[in-house]
Order: sequence, then C-alpha cells, then structure tokens
Amino acid sequence: MALYVHKYGGSSVADADKIVNVARRIAAVHDAGNQIVTVVSAMGDTTDELIDLAQTVSSEPDPRELDLLLSTGELVSITLLSMALRNLGYDAISLSGPQAGIRTDRTYGRARISQVDPERVRRELDQGRLVIVAGFQGSTPDEDITTLGRGGSDTTAVALAAALEADRCDIYTDVEGIYTADPRVAPKAAKLAHVGYEEMLELAAAGAKMHPRSIELGSVYNVPIYVASSFTDASGTLIHQTSDDGEMEDRIKVTGIAYQTNVAKVTVCGVEDKPGVAAALFEPLAAAGISVDTIVQNTSADRTTTDISFTVTTADLSRALREVSQLKSSFGAGQVMSDETLASVSVVGSGMQNTPGYASRMFRILADGGINIDMITTSEIRISCIINRDKAHEAVRLLHEGFELDEAG
Amino acid sequence: MALYVHKYGGSSVADADKIVNVARRIAAVHDAGNQIVTVVSAMGDTTDELIDLAQTVSSEPDPRELDLLLSTGELVSITLLSMALRNLGYDAISLSGPQAGIRTDRTYGRARISQVDPERVRRELDQGRLVIVAGFQGSTPDEDITTLGRGGSDTTAVALAAALEADRCDIYTDVEGIYTADPRVAPKAAKLAHVGYEEMLELAAAGAKMHPRSIELGSVYNVPIYVASSFTDASGTLIHQTSDDGEMEDRIKVTGIAYQTNVAKVTVCGVEDKPGVAAALFEPLAAAGISVDTIVQNTSADRTTTDISFTVTTADLSRALREVSQLKSSFGAGQVMSDETLASVSVVGSGMQNTPGYASRMFRILADGGINIDMITTSEIRISCIINRDKAHEAVRLLHEGFELDEAG
Repeated sequence: MALYVHKYGGSSVADADKIVNVARRIAAVHDAGNQIVTVVSAMGDTTDELIDLAQTVSSEPDPRELDLLLSTGELVSITLLSMALRNLGYDAISLSGPQAGIRTDRTYGRARISQVDPERVRRELDQGRLVIVAGFQGSTPDEDITTLGRGGSDTTAVALAAALEADRCDIYTDVEGIYTADPRVAPKAAKLAHVGYEEMLELAAAGAKMHPRSIELGSVYNVPIYVASSFTDASGTLIHQTSDDGEMEDRIKVTGIAYQTNVAKVTVCGVEDKPGVAAALFEPLAAAGISVDTIVQNTSADRTTTDISFTVTTADLSRALREVSQLKSSFGAGQVMSDETLASVSVVGSGMQNTPGYASRMFRILADGGINIDMITTSEIRISCIINRDKAHEAVRLLHEGFELDEAG
Repeated sequence: MALYVHKYGGSSVADADKIVNVARRIAAVHDAGNQIVTVVSAMGDTTDELIDLAQTVSSEPDPRELDLLLSTGELVSITLLSMALRNLGYDAISLSGPQAGIRTDRTYGRARISQVDPERVRRELDQGRLVIVAGFQGSTPDEDITTLGRGGSDTTAVALAAALEADRCDIYTDVEGIYTADPRVAPKAAKLAHVGYEEMLELAAAGAKMHPRSIELGSVYNVPIYVASSFTDASGTLIHQTSDDGEMEDRIKVTGIAYQTNVAKVTVCGVEDKPGVAAALFEPLAAAGISVDTIVQNTSADRTTTDISFTVTTADLSRALREVSQLKSSFGAGQVMSDETLASVSVVGSGMQNTPGYASRMFRILADGGINIDMITTSEIRISCIINRDKAHEAVRLLHEGFELDEAG
C-alpha cells in the first residue's frame, strides 16, 4: 500500500464542479488501494479577495491579523472537498494546518515550517480515512496562525510528504508540468519528463510556477515531486534526485529558460568603501523579511566610495527604500535610486558550471537581439541577466531558440 | 478599572463602515479607562452563505466539516475588527474561539461549552490590549472545531464574562433592548429597563432575540447582561438577579409576551399505555440532538393505548419523524401525524406561579379573539399556548393589550 500526498491549487478547486472533480480523482487513488493525503489551496482568487477585504478597514493590515484572515480561505476549500468526498461515500476528514501538525516560526505572511508533527494525520490514515489538509498555513508555538506566503501550499504538501515518508508528492495545477520555458511566452517550449531538484529550484526561483521552498524541502528530504495537470490525464514532470551515473548527455544540456517580471533595482550611491558596509545595509533588510536577489557592487573611480545595487521584488520595493533611507546616514551614503521596470531572464542547466561558454553564448544571443544587460549573476547551475521588462518575453524566446530548446515542430 | 465583555452581532459588523463604527465604540470604552473583551459574530448573512456553499457540494454536509467551514465567518469578522482598531491606533488582537480558551463537547452544530480557559485572554488584557474574540465557536478535547448553534455568540460572551469575572456583559444588537413583546408585531410594546434572568429565559426561549443558553449561564454565574443597540446610544435592558426585597409590585406583573413561529407538532397515535414508553420515545430524540418542547399525552377512551404529541422546531421535524418511524414498532404505535403550521405564544412573568387567574385570563383573551388553542404548557413563570401560525401575531397583540402592557400612547 503506497502513501501519496497530492496537492491541488486554487484554480483546481475554484468552484463546486471543480471540487467534485478533484474529489473523484482522490477517490480513484484510494480505490486503487493507496493511502492519500490531499493538500488544498484556497478556492480561485479567494486570497486576493480577502486581502482586498482587509484593505477596506486598514491600509496596512497587521500581519498577524491578516494571516488569521487569510487562513480562512483554505478552511473553506478543505471542508468543501471533504464534504464532496463524503457525498461520494468516502470517509474523508479535513484538517487545518495546525491540526495537521504544521508548526512554523513567527514570521507572519511568509512563515517557515519549523516542524511537522504528523501524528493526527497518521491516526486518521490508520482509520482508513482520506485526509484533506489546508495548505499555506500553520501555527506558532503560541498557537497563533501563520501563512507561508504565496505558493505556500506546495511547501505544505512536500513537508507533509517528508514527515509522513510518503512515496511521492503530486502537485496538480493548471499546467501539465515543467517546461523548458513558459509556454505562454515561448510557444515552442517542450515539457520535461523529469528534472533534478537543483535545476527545478533555479527554474522555480526564476519564474517557473512552483514554490521554491517546496523544491528545497523535496531535495533535502529526497521526496519525489510529480507536477501535472489537475484537468487532464497527460503525463507531467517528475522532480527527483538526478543520479550521478548515466544521463551524462542530459547533464551537460541547458534544461530551460526562466524569467520573472517583478524585478526592481535599488542603487545606493557613494557609500564609504570600508568593511561592514554591506552587512549594515543588508542585515536590516533581512530582518524586515525583504528578500534580496542580485547584488552588485561597483567601486568608484576614486576608490573611496562605492555604489551598491541590489534587486528586490516590486512588491518589496517601497519597504526596501524605506529601510535604506533610514540607514543611509549611518554609512554616509549619497543618493538612493530605484528602477522598477526590470525583469530577469535565466538559463538553467545542471551541467553549466563545468562547461565553459554558456555565459558568453547567452550574452551574445541577447546582444544580437538588441537587448541591453543591466546586471548579471550566476549560480552553479544558472546564469541570470537583469534586463528591461519590455524585453523579457522576447529574451526568453531568443534564448529558448538559441540554446536549441525549441520543440521540433 | 472595570472589565467589560461586549458582544456585537452580525448585523452590527455587516460591512466595513459598520466594523469601523464598532471599533470606535470599543475604543471609547478603552479610553474611559476600562479593560474590554469584544465577542463578534460573522458579518451579516455570512453563516447562511456558507451553509448555501456547503449545499453546492453535499445535500447533507457532515456536521464536523460544516462546523469548521462555518467557523471561518467569525475569523473574518474578528480580524477585520482588530485591523480597524489598529488602524485607529489601538493595540488590538483577535483570538479564535479555541485561542480564547472556549472548550466544548463534541456535539457539532450545537456544541455546549464545557469550560473556558481564559489564560490567553487575560495575558493579552494584562498587556493593555483590546481583545477581540470569535463568537459561536470552540474546540473539542481533540482540537476539532465546533460551533455553538444559532445565536451562540451570546453564549460565548457570557461564558467569557463569567470566566473572567467581568463587571458586566453587554450584548449589542439591532434592537434597543428587551421589550414586553416583539415591537414589529405589537407596535405598543414597551422597552423593559430591567428584567430577571428567569423571566428573560422564558422570553428568550419563547421568541425574544437572545440565545437562551447565554441567559442560563448568566443566571448560574450571576453575570449582569446589558442588551442595547449597536447603532444608537439609547438605554437598553439590564438582565440581572432580581432582588427578593422590594420590587414587589413588579414581581406580580406580567413581564412580556413572547412567541415563536417555527413550531411543528408530532403525534404518535395508539401507543401502548405502559411504563417506559415515553422514555423509549424521547431518549433517542435527545440522543439525536433534537430539542423537544411541549409534550402532551392523552389516554384513549379504552385506556389501553395513548396518543403522545410533542413539538419540535420546524427545522428538526424531518429528523424527528425519521427517528420516530424507526422506533414505532418497538412500542407498538400506530399512525404518526405531523403538523408544521403552528406557533407558540407565551405570557411571561415572575409572579405568575403564586397568582391565580393568569392562565384563565390568557385563555379568555385568545377565545375572545377567535383563536383556537392546540396545546398548553406552563412553567413557573410562563404560560404557553400552541396555536395556528397564521394567528400568532394577532395573539401577541391581543395578549399584550389584554395584560395591560400597551405603552401609554
């Protein structure tokens, strides 16, 4: 008897018909003799609607209160899905994040899972029940409700799969799997049958639709993650440990092209060029929960001051600017500039670090397309360029073609 | 420094403007140097909307699942109210029923509070916070979510007031207090400045807008309950322990006329007239959570069989009929009949039991109005008649006038 954790996103449970459809799919897994835990997101646009509702009483809702408010979205979807299963004659039970043992830190709005206590889930499974768990939410040691941030339900599912030692974690969504690029942008993008955690992590962080923390967790606990469509039976993409033997030809190829369009850049000019400046700048940003991506530091011609540029999401830009302006005087900085019209494009592939020429090839393709590069960062398996947002889609298409990823038509 | 528990119903927090209005009222209590805990119901018709939503996936939603679903309504209203208070500059915190220590039994849909553990609420109050608590909900020893049934937020408020030893529990609603009859039915109804728990209990059970269990709790723990409007500053009605000294003239008066229109009658004909029959009939109904009100037993002419009639709410009728038909054969009953077109009207007053003539006066007033009486029950402070529903409003007006309760115009 296998144990599966399945996760369905908001678009898969957007209305009663879709919920009944998901119920039938879950029932089929159970009927095939398996145990199943299903993690569900809030229906459709519920989370956005709740945020709008909060805005009607407060322009800056308290993060703790907002999390308790947002947590109701998943409580609605899990109870409806459980009712739908019961209506089909199955013994289902819904559990909130806290009931399912999802413990987190106190970072409201983007809490991290500290521990999963799967005792209750296991007890319900042992009684032959189909367990439905609210994604996206957990509780602090004080039993306050937290949410895990956008896409957090993926993380809930993988964390539960790890804690339950499940055979596989299936993420059902509105796309059929992981592609070599966003198919809406690059029509010739090809679906990947399988991909390694690290490559997927870069694809996810750089724009593909998966919560990066879920991939991290899957990698650490070695949980095979299968991404497929909730609406069709087409085969999806398996994210798993790539073996060190074999697959050599695969490993030296580029896996895909990722992008994100919500990139903003902050430049702090004329910072004193002395030890500790970077720490003084980025520690408070981290403490404020602002995620900084690319960082570039350019020493000025006279070598006494330096300009530091970094990117954040456009959503974090105003908070980041507030933090920076408070800090400015402490390290003698001059002007602070920002640009919120940027995007990133990335070439991802696990073989790249050992194979020269990928970076220069990327820069050449962008140059030939007349696309200016603002900043560059590289990781072991990724090369990313910050470019003008207007050029993002074109860059993805050019890179997809240039790296020979286009599906044979 | 006084400690108050205030409760606001769904119509008082139906939209953002009303929530901000409630926030201002709470803030004023705090500004006057008091501690305050506010219990809130779900916004407007949220609970009904959630029930409708459940119906879209299941015609008979599982009670446990339904309770978890319904509990989200109050989580929305408490978080919005807390955000609104914070927006006004106050340090507010919202707590779900379980977080506020409301422990219940496992009777989903109409759970009873077994215990209130006020430790968390007290800790927040000690930090100078304005505490907002979700009404209507609690948790079982297994940490499953329960709801207390319609009007349960009143019970939450009084239970919290008792556990916190609050100075008073204020119930703010869309009426200005407790009247001698429903003002929509009897336009000459007068507002009562104060009323005893027992009389209020009869008025509440017989139709006035208060959750009877909240009055019971108030009576047991001697919590003064003040009922007033959330929209005006008009004085309301204080429900409290009536003193044994003084007020003699008040005590021998009729306090008010109550009614309810959701009465259904079940008659089990030809039941064997032997010991244990009533127990065999009513124990399973109680076990099914069906509340039986009036019970009348008529022995037949031949004295070997009897007819038993009882009333339930119209909402419980189909379940009651199902239970009874399962039992029928076990005590040799014949036909089961039902009538769901009934209402009850009651004359309530704490002095009635020692004062003859009230019952006959009631029957005379109804008879003179051409209103037929189907069943009669009396308690120490109440006389109730079951009549045809079409006559209910007329009966209330006639009794209100006949017992000289009409306000001097």
